[in-house]
Amino acid sequence: MTGLKAGASPVIDGCQYCNWSRRIFEEMRAGSVDAVSVTIGYHEDFRETVERIVDWNRLFEAHGDLIVKARSVADIDAARQSNRTAIFFALQNCSAIEDDIGLVEILHDLGVRVMQLTYNNQSLLGTGCYEAVDSGITRMGREVIAEMNRLGMIIDMSHSAERSTLEAIDISARPIAITHANPAAWHKVARNKSPEVLKALAARGGMLGLSLYPLHLKDGSNCALETFTEMVAGLADLIGVDHIGIGSDLCQDQPDSVVEWMRNGRWTKGGASIGLGKAVFPPQPAWFRDNRDFGNVRAGLIARGFTAEEAGKILGGNWYRFFTDGFAPGRA
Amino acid sequence: MTGLKAGASPVIDGCQYCNWSRRIFEEMRAGSVDAVSVTIGYHEDFRETVERIVDWNRLFEAHGDLIVKARSVADIDAARQSNRTAIFFALQNCSAIEDDIGLVEILHDLGVRVMQLTYNNQSLLGTGCYEAVDSGITRMGREVIAEMNRLGMIIDMSHSAERSTLEAIDISARPIAITHANPAAWHKVARNKSPEVLKALAARGGMLGLSLYPLHLKDGSNCALETFTEMVAGLADLIGVDHIGIGSDLCQDQPDSVVEWMRNGRWTKGGASIGLGKAVFPPQPAWFRDNRDFGNVRAGLIARGFTAEEAGKILGGNWYRFFTDGFAPGRA
Repeated sequence: MTGLKAGASPVIDGCQYCNWSRRIFEEMRAGSVDAVSVTIGYHEDFRETVERIVDWNRLFEAHGDLIVKARSVADIDAARQSNRTAIFFALQNCSAIEDDIGLVEILHDLGVRVMQLTYNNQSLLGTGCYEAVDSGITRMGREVIAEMNRLGMIIDMSHSAERSTLEAIDISARPIAITHANPAAWHKVARNKSPEVLKALAARGGMLGLSLYPLHLKDGSNCALETFTEMVAGLADLIGVDHIGIGSDLCQDQPDSVVEWMRNGRWTKGGASIGLGKAVFPPQPAWFRDNRDFGNVRAGLIARGFTAEEAGKILGGNWYRFFTDGFAPGRA
Repeated sequence: MTGLKAGASPVIDGCQYCNWSRRIFEEMRAGSVDAVSVTIGYHEDFRETVERIVDWNRLFEAHGDLIVKARSVADIDAARQSNRTAIFFALQNCSAIEDDIGLVEILHDLGVRVMQLTYNNQSLLGTGCYEAVDSGITRMGREVIAEMNRLGMIIDMSHSAERSTLEAIDISARPIAITHANPAAWHKVARNKSPEVLKALAARGGMLGLSLYPLHLKDGSNCALETFTEMVAGLADLIGVDHIGIGSDLCQDQPDSVVEWMRNGRWTKGGASIGLGKAVFPPQPAWFRDNRDFGNVRAGLIARGFTAEEAGKILGGNWYRFFTDGFAPGRA
C-alpha cells in the first residue's frame, strides 16, 4: 500500500462532501486514504436521497479502480488489499427518512451507515445547534435511535444542540459519534462542542471527528497546524486519545451555491441568518487542502509529542475500531 | 429438516402473492418449502414498492423464526440449516423503476432478484400479453435488460406478449425466466406460452415455472393432478426436465379486491375487460391448496413416471441451479 506500512492503522475520514470527480478519488489514493464517510444528503427527502445514491452507483461503476462502496469494516480491509478507497454513505439530517421509521432500514440496506438526527434546525427527531430553544430528543427521535441501534447505523450529533446531544448519548444503547466538530473551549462557535458533551460522549465510548473546516478552526483559514495540534493535545488530556478521529468536512470543488443549500435548504426563502456571514466556502488551511494532506496532520501530531501509534489512532485507527462495533447488527 | 432427506434438492416456489400471515409461514415450514420468490408489486411506483419492502421487513422481524430475507442461493442454504424459509423479492411489473434506470440497482440493493418487464399491458420496456399489438422490446427495455444482466436480476416474461418474450430471450446475455405460466398447447389462454417461446426459452438456458393458478390450468379449479402431470411429461419431452420448475402463483387468503388491483391498477376506471370474467380468486385445485401440498405434486410426478431425482429438480432443484447462476453479478 502506497505510503502505509503493512499492519499500520488505516487512514479514515469521518466526513467529506466534495464535488466528486476522478481527480478527487485519485487524490484519495495519493493520500493513502483507506475510507471516507461521504455525506449524501442535507435537506433531501427520501426520493431525492435515492437519486444521490444512484449518482454514487454511477461513480462506483466509472471509477471502480479507485473507489468501492463499503458497508462494513471488512470492506475497508478489502479496499486496502485492492488499493482502493472504501466509501461509506452518511446523512447529515433525518429528512431522508421523512416521517417513516421503516425508511431507516431501507436506507441502511442501501448502505447508509451514519445519520445525523438534526441539521442546524429542529427536526422530527431533535434540536439543531442554531435553534433558540433545545427541547431534546422527540418521541419519534427515541424510536429512531432504537431502530438505528438495532441495525448498526451510527447516530451523529455534529449539528445538534447541547441538550439533544446529551440526551442522544444517554438514550442510545450504543456509543454515538460527533463526526465533524471541534471543542468550543478552543473556538467558540455554535457547531463546536462543550466540555460536558465531549466528556459524556467519550465516557459512553463515543467518537469525536475533528473538523478541518475553517469556520470550526481558531483563526479560520489561517489556523496554524501547531494551533490545531495543541488543541488535540488538550482534548486528548480531557477525553482520551482513543475517542478522537478526523472528520475533515472537506467540501472540495463545491460551488458556493452549495453553502446556500446547506444553510437554507427549502425551509427559508433566504432571510434567516445564522450569523456566519456570506454564503461562500472559505479557503482551506495551507496544511490541509485536500486528501493528499493527511500526512501533514500526522506529522503535526507527532511533532506535538503524540507517538506514531497515537497519531495512527487519530488518523483512522479509532474510527476503524468504532466502526467495527458500530456497524455490527445490534442486539434486538 | 422436516420431510427432506439431507442432501435432497430444496423445495422452491418461483412465484407467490399471498396475504402473508404467521399461519402461511407455518404452512411453508410444514410443507418443507425452502425458498419462495414473493411478488412485492404489480402497479406500485417506486415509493409504494419501498413501503411494501418496509412491510416485509416488519414480517421478517416478527416471524424471524420461520422466514428470512434472501439475496443469494447461499441464503437458501442458510435458511435450510436453520429450518426457515428463504424469501426472495420479485416484481411483476417495471412500474417500480418508473422511468429511471438507476432504480434497477437501488431495488437490487433492496433485495429484488426478479422483475417482469411487463404486466399484461404495454410498459416502458415491452408489451404485455393482453395488448392488441406486440411491438417488442423498447429502447429503454434494452437498457434495462443490460442493467439486469449486469446486476444479476432475473428477467421474467410471465405476463408478456409473444414477440416481446422472444426478443427478451434473444437480447438478454443471460438466461431468463417465465416464473409462472403453462404451455398454451395444453390450455390456451393469453397467459400461457407457445411451443416457440418454450423452446427458445429452454434453448438459452431459461426456466419455466409451472403455474397452479386455476385460470392457467386445463379444467380450471377442477384440474386433476394426473391431467397436470401428463402436461409436465409432455413439456419435459419438448424442452427437457432441467428447464421446469414450479411458480405456483398461490394467492392465498387474498380478498377479491386484489384481483381488481391486479387487473385494473390505476390505468383504467374499470371498464377494460380482458375476458376473464368476474374479478374473484377461483378455488385452488384440491391437490394444491397451500404450501403444505408440494408433496402432492411430487407424488403425482413420480406416479406419472418421473424419477425421484427428476421430481426433485422440478420441485426446486432446477430453480436452485438457475438462481445460482442468475443471481451472481454479471460480466460488465
